[in-house]
Amino acid sequence: MTVQAAIPLGITVQVLAASPDDSAALVCPTVILGPPDGPEALDRLAAASDVITFDHELVDVGQLRRLEAAGQALHPSAATMAVAQDKGEQHRRFAAAGLPVPAHTFVSGVAELIAFGKRHGWPVVAKACRGGYDGRGVWVLPEPHAAQQLLDRAAAAGIGLLVERWVPIEREIAVLVARRGDGTSAVYPVVETVQRDGICHEVLAPAPLGADLTAAARRLALAVAEAVDVTGILAVEIFVTEGTLMVNEIATRPHNSGHFSIEGCVTSQFENHLRAILGWPLGSTALTAPAAAMANILAGPNPVDLAGALPEALAIEGVHVHLYGKAPRPGRKVGHVTALGDDIGDARERAVRAAAVLTGRAPAHITS
Amino acid sequence: MTVQAAIPLGITVQVLAASPDDSAALVCPTVILGPPDGPEALDRLAAASDVITFDHELVDVGQLRRLEAAGQALHPSAATMAVAQDKGEQHRRFAAAGLPVPAHTFVSGVAELIAFGKRHGWPVVAKACRGGYDGRGVWVLPEPHAAQQLLDRAAAAGIGLLVERWVPIEREIAVLVARRGDGTSAVYPVVETVQRDGICHEVLAPAPLGADLTAAARRLALAVAEAVDVTGILAVEIFVTEGTLMVNEIATRPHNSGHFSIEGCVTSQFENHLRAILGWPLGSTALTAPAAAMANILAGPNPVDLAGALPEALAIEGVHVHLYGKAPRPGRKVGHVTALGDDIGDARERAVRAAAVLTGRAPAHITS
Repeated sequence: MTVQAAIPLGITVQVLAASPDDSAALVCPTVILGPPDGPEALDRLAAASDVITFDHELVDVGQLRRLEAAGQALHPSAATMAVAQDKGEQHRRFAAAGLPVPAHTFVSGVAELIAFGKRHGWPVVAKACRGGYDGRGVWVLPEPHAAQQLLDRAAAAGIGLLVERWVPIEREIAVLVARRGDGTSAVYPVVETVQRDGICHEVLAPAPLGADLTAAARRLALAVAEAVDVTGILAVEIFVTEGTLMVNEIATRPHNSGHFSIEGCVTSQFENHLRAILGWPLGSTALTAPAAAMANILAGPNPVDLAGALPEALAIEGVHVHLYGKAPRPGRKVGHVTALGDDIGDARERAVRAAAVLTGRAPAHITS
Repeated sequence: MTVQAAIPLGITVQVLAASPDDSAALVCPTVILGPPDGPEALDRLAAASDVITFDHELVDVGQLRRLEAAGQALHPSAATMAVAQDKGEQHRRFAAAGLPVPAHTFVSGVAELIAFGKRHGWPVVAKACRGGYDGRGVWVLPEPHAAQQLLDRAAAAGIGLLVERWVPIEREIAVLVARRGDGTSAVYPVVETVQRDGICHEVLAPAPLGADLTAAARRLALAVAEAVDVTGILAVEIFVTEGTLMVNEIATRPHNSGHFSIEGCVTSQFENHLRAILGWPLGSTALTAPAAAMANILAGPNPVDLAGALPEALAIEGVHVHLYGKAPRPGRKVGHVTALGDDIGDARERAVRAAAVLTGRAPAHITS
């Protein structure tokens, strides 16, 4: 989607892709094949690029520091990417900046974990500091007995564990910020993210919050952007818990919670990411309609033929289908659908129905 | 722009381009290099394609008929492309269908032309039946004396001439129709095209017409679509003259008068072109805002560095810049800018100002 946003701005994109089948590689005329942390491929990318940016966090920060030291512009910087890929470092930094995060600690032994649970109550939430994605790397431990098993597995895998107090989540929201190197920022409308099993299924814009909480979420997102010194798009995932806000996770790149912005905002997150990393003026983040709903296309257990199902989905009024060129393995995000409207309920119903056609499942029952 | 629209729908596009520098070739991973009428390149394109479509009319209809006879799907068909590239044939067909066109005739000698001028009054408008574009191939002859010179030139170039009664143009409008092979059609909002020297400078949506004239323009465009049996997007350029409508020209492809639809309509002309030629459901053509304005970026006599000027253009609120990857030779369309708003005056001012930045000229004085 970044490639698509680059075309009308006359920006030439070169993609470093591990495989010619990667989504971005399928649609980009110039592809460098190689691992994201391979020095040789990175050097080829750097030699051909004015600016390097990222569409995931799974990069080798040591390599990024080496490129930066050699004068290569990286946006976000190696230092920001180091934070982006380490949930523990995020919590340290947010707590240091006085930003609200759940009570937490870093544990290496079962005694520490049980002591934490005793102090804050069970269940506790354990998170792998690195490499988690779409609910993977997050465990809710109902009681002390579950702790030993997880710690053994984490130790065997060499994973550091962050343990958080479990907070009762009223709602999950997200705020995107586009931020330039000079600190100039534009904040997107606060959205609600509808999660099931730790996976985002839907995004609803704007989030149904009062004016005070909306303003607080925007301020919080800007403070997070400053704390991690991001250049480009930052997504801040936030819990609404007992009427207050707590930072959950961040992503320092265009993010699923902002896909609605392609049609739903004057300037998409992808265009503003490009504008930000190039130091260009940021575009308006205003909504283009009173309400926008995005539904992910999460391949079902019996994946459908996407091309075959597409006409039925497109028959639904005003839906915007985005397929990523990915083979539909069960549970995989292979695309998304956005619908706009005067009313979030109507937009959501259409987006969810079209996504359901493309997963071969009945639309999930919508609850608010 | 068709390539961009194809990406989210999972449609793989192969471009037949005369040069690797052609706009579409720059952004498409798979390019077949060759002339648009070369049998060998066309055969390679056909072998790799389920459906062939067109982004200009300068094709060899004989070659298209050969491909069609061999079972290749062409949308629009060879028969429609034959009409699309011949203004004389268009006039014949529209007149036969009872659709309003200016009084006209086909002339091969000066006596015929002068007799036509005598009957309908001077000036008369002469048009090359084939190959005209952006005001080229159209001549206004003020009096009989100018006729001989033009006829000599046309005869020398082997060009057939269509001669039309000059009509006093109150306004030029255009209507896009997306039409499938089964005749199902969707009509876009009627737009005003602001022309100077036969070149479209701006497009304003919706056109400031009364309800009756708007409805008549939509009916006329649908009738034209049927008369030429188009599959895909059809643009119908229409004169408003003395309170009535007359068909001026058509294009059987996504057209400059519909570029506003990328942001200005729920479904862009490029997406609906793809949906139509694939026989998929057509998308909504409704406006996404009360008003949309498009200004072409026509390179000035002293072309500016587009990349250098871009940040200044992007600093203008809510403008969508589309660059085509073309070197800015004087007079060449190298891109366009769209702006949406509640008010056409405001949207137009912003679009024109951004386009002016990218041409290095002061914005032209806006008159309505």
